[in-house]
Amino acid sequence: MARKALSEAEARAQLAQLPDWQLRDGKLFRELTFASFVEAFGFMSALALHAEKLDHHPDWRNVYNRVSLELWTHDAGGLTALDFELARRADALAARFTR
Amino acid sequence: MARKALSEAEARAQLAQLPDWQLRDGKLFRELTFASFVEAFGFMSALALHAEKLDHHPDWRNVYNRVSLELWTHDAGGLTALDFELARRADALAARFTR
Repeated sequence: MARKALSEAEARAQLAQLPDWQLRDGKLFRELTFASFVEAFGFMSALALHAEKLDHHPDWRNVYNRVSLELWTHDAGGLTALDFELARRADALAARFTR
Repeated sequence: MARKALSEAEARAQLAQLPDWQLRDGKLFRELTFASFVEAFGFMSALALHAEKLDHHPDWRNVYNRVSLELWTHDAGGLTALDFELARRADALAARFTR
């Protein structure tokens, strides 16, 4: 999947498909709250496998039942198709863990 | 294990036993760099089990092969024996993952 930075118009068009995400300092950002640490870390474990498979990894923070995600492509100096793919996978996984 | 806040002298005495940790904004802080994301998340997965068993969870952030940890006891409004126990377990685990 292309690691070429998307134009701002392309990024905005993709972002429009992801209502739970916002742009923050040029990065894709989402915060999730789960029912417990077990659910939060379960989500993280699943997403970690996807990240490794995509060879594209999040900048993420966890505090008990909360997970915040920041996606950006360092190599491209911007947002790429990979960031949106990881965001979509995060959304799909999040729906499977108790919140 | 006690969730009672340690005095500053007690906290300093315990910190002296943990050379890889520092106090930052009153919290225990350590940053680790691993050989890869797989190693970093392997460490996190192991520590997550300990955290859940202790019912004491870190505030942590991961970016690719780096993990930063902040430990503090919200309920006590300070550092407790649990923070130092989790720090010691993190140190023991970190030694087992490739860095």
